[in-house]
Amino acid sequence: MDRRSFITRSVIAGTGAAALAAPAIAQGNMTWRMVTTWPKNFPGLGVGAQRLADRITAASGGRLTVQVYAAGELVPPLQSLDAVIDGTAEMSHGAAYYWQNKSTALSFFTGVPYGMTSSELAGWIRHMGGQELWDEVYDQFGVQGFLSGNTGTQAGGWFRNELTGVADLQGLRFRTPGLGGRVWEQLGATVTNMAAGEIFQALQSGTLDAAEFVGPYNDLALGFYQVAKNYYFPSFVEPGLATELVVDKAKFQELPDDLQAIVRDVSQAEYDMVASDFAANDPRALQTLINEHDVNVLQFPDEILEAGAEASKAVITELRESDDDLTKRTAESFVEALNIMRVRTQSTDSAFIRAREQYFSI
Amino acid sequence: MDRRSFITRSVIAGTGAAALAAPAIAQGNMTWRMVTTWPKNFPGLGVGAQRLADRITAASGGRLTVQVYAAGELVPPLQSLDAVIDGTAEMSHGAAYYWQNKSTALSFFTGVPYGMTSSELAGWIRHMGGQELWDEVYDQFGVQGFLSGNTGTQAGGWFRNELTGVADLQGLRFRTPGLGGRVWEQLGATVTNMAAGEIFQALQSGTLDAAEFVGPYNDLALGFYQVAKNYYFPSFVEPGLATELVVDKAKFQELPDDLQAIVRDVSQAEYDMVASDFAANDPRALQTLINEHDVNVLQFPDEILEAGAEASKAVITELRESDDDLTKRTAESFVEALNIMRVRTQSTDSAFIRAREQYFSI
Repeated sequence: MDRRSFITRSVIAGTGAAALAAPAIAQGNMTWRMVTTWPKNFPGLGVGAQRLADRITAASGGRLTVQVYAAGELVPPLQSLDAVIDGTAEMSHGAAYYWQNKSTALSFFTGVPYGMTSSELAGWIRHMGGQELWDEVYDQFGVQGFLSGNTGTQAGGWFRNELTGVADLQGLRFRTPGLGGRVWEQLGATVTNMAAGEIFQALQSGTLDAAEFVGPYNDLALGFYQVAKNYYFPSFVEPGLATELVVDKAKFQELPDDLQAIVRDVSQAEYDMVASDFAANDPRALQTLINEHDVNVLQFPDEILEAGAEASKAVITELRESDDDLTKRTAESFVEALNIMRVRTQSTDSAFIRAREQYFSI
Repeated sequence: MDRRSFITRSVIAGTGAAALAAPAIAQGNMTWRMVTTWPKNFPGLGVGAQRLADRITAASGGRLTVQVYAAGELVPPLQSLDAVIDGTAEMSHGAAYYWQNKSTALSFFTGVPYGMTSSELAGWIRHMGGQELWDEVYDQFGVQGFLSGNTGTQAGGWFRNELTGVADLQGLRFRTPGLGGRVWEQLGATVTNMAAGEIFQALQSGTLDAAEFVGPYNDLALGFYQVAKNYYFPSFVEPGLATELVVDKAKFQELPDDLQAIVRDVSQAEYDMVASDFAANDPRALQTLINEHDVNVLQFPDEILEAGAEASKAVITELRESDDDLTKRTAESFVEALNIMRVRTQSTDSAFIRAREQYFSI
């Protein structure tokens, strides 16, 4: 379907001010295609992409109808951004760190090892210059990104054997992608990436010793508990994984102001909706894993947390010293914002949670 | 200004589907009044009320223009809810716990001592039945509430003298409102409430020994550091204070579906926007307090945290055993949801923050 010919065929009166501001587009209803990197009905994230689309359609009274294509339906999942760049789709729903090959700066807009929590990331993006840097990165490709969800702090992974320290990681065959994978490599693991659908089989056959995916809400559905009983918390390489809505920037800017506002507002609303979905449903899934599937819930030994912090620092320092000016500036801004915000997170939020854990049972 | 006569005077074509659904209202632009409990430009909260209004106006293309009245401009701040109930305004921006005299259940939709963090509250409201209970409470008054912001975990308060334990609290004259005030009373303090503008003078003259307001972002502006140097963290009675947007339910339901969606979506977007504003700007203000005003930042002694937990439990238990069925059911739902979600907050989010604090400096 060609969008422009569709627009010229359907002519319905637009609203007052908006119609005056951008008459060419506001004359008709539009349908935009949203490709996603998620399987259909994927808990939290795929569901979130569909809900975001439906909310834009509803808030615009159908003037901007968003049609969702799950991973592979229109393009393969990891071609979602390219689909927007080449005009196959107007929107993509995924995670910015999937596109690190386009710019290493993009990791920071999803989350980096030992980096920001969901709340801190929103603080940086919305109030400390993060969005402006993101816009600069995506301007190179003619697209615009908006935060559209966050998983919160993820689980550390499923391990066939219990871990006592860093020595156990030497040669450990571990599935974990992105910068987190580089951190685990520095700890001695042999890191591979593979698609979600292949992990179970690889754990079962012994091709993998361990695998990290998301957290209880998603992992329960994939059945890893059947082949690896040790479930480690928390992930120190994914303290908060943000999803993104990407739009074709030129087409977005042609929208009347009210529709642009709706796309922005609904994306921000979904940042809260997805995060709160994980807050509510991750622990329910964890209860099921413990009570019905005898999963052994563990915390990483301190030695691994500490070595992981050193390795994470090395990975981020490399980005701060990047030859690419924009990556360098993004890394600097991220680290500066993190160091400001962590004071509050640690001394206020975390101090409260610690006191509640220790003294308040009800 | 009479809203209905205003509507009939301005006739502009509405959008397709929405106009069909509710033709009487969708015929024209409307202006709604929003009264607030906040001073104009009050950091985080007053600013948030204005931004929420502006975003509804923008996303609706001016079809629903929201006019904000700061505390006292149209009605006194603590008559904001009544102003919506009696039709003086269509919207109110404040905090549900201000209206505890109407229903004790309302505290839970703002935050209670040793209760939920900002993220957990969103989990309960949006995914665990909280909104439905809130609707039941407000249905009694013909209004509807939406979360519209959160301060995050607040500061514990300004104290003229350092605290060594519970003994220091006996007879301590402390300004702190609501259920938190009842907790501090149980700890031995003599609790009073007074308006923000009166606190400084009372601390200076010695009428107060201590006062709790919000956190660094708001407290810096009020200058408390000039008269009380000991700033305690965290507040265990306000682990997350949510603000609300209240709308006249009948008028809201007369809106076309797209405008209803916009009000809901923008409120949810603002929940994230206000929380991230505090995440970014509370620690900046704290830096100023420490570096420029020699404020002594302290954590409450464990003895006070522990006694505070016991007192908080007593206060919440009283609500769980309330004669009012709806308060009882709300308290039960809140406690059940808290006990599910805290497992994740404690073992995943907080465990990550602890590891980052201990091992990761950059």
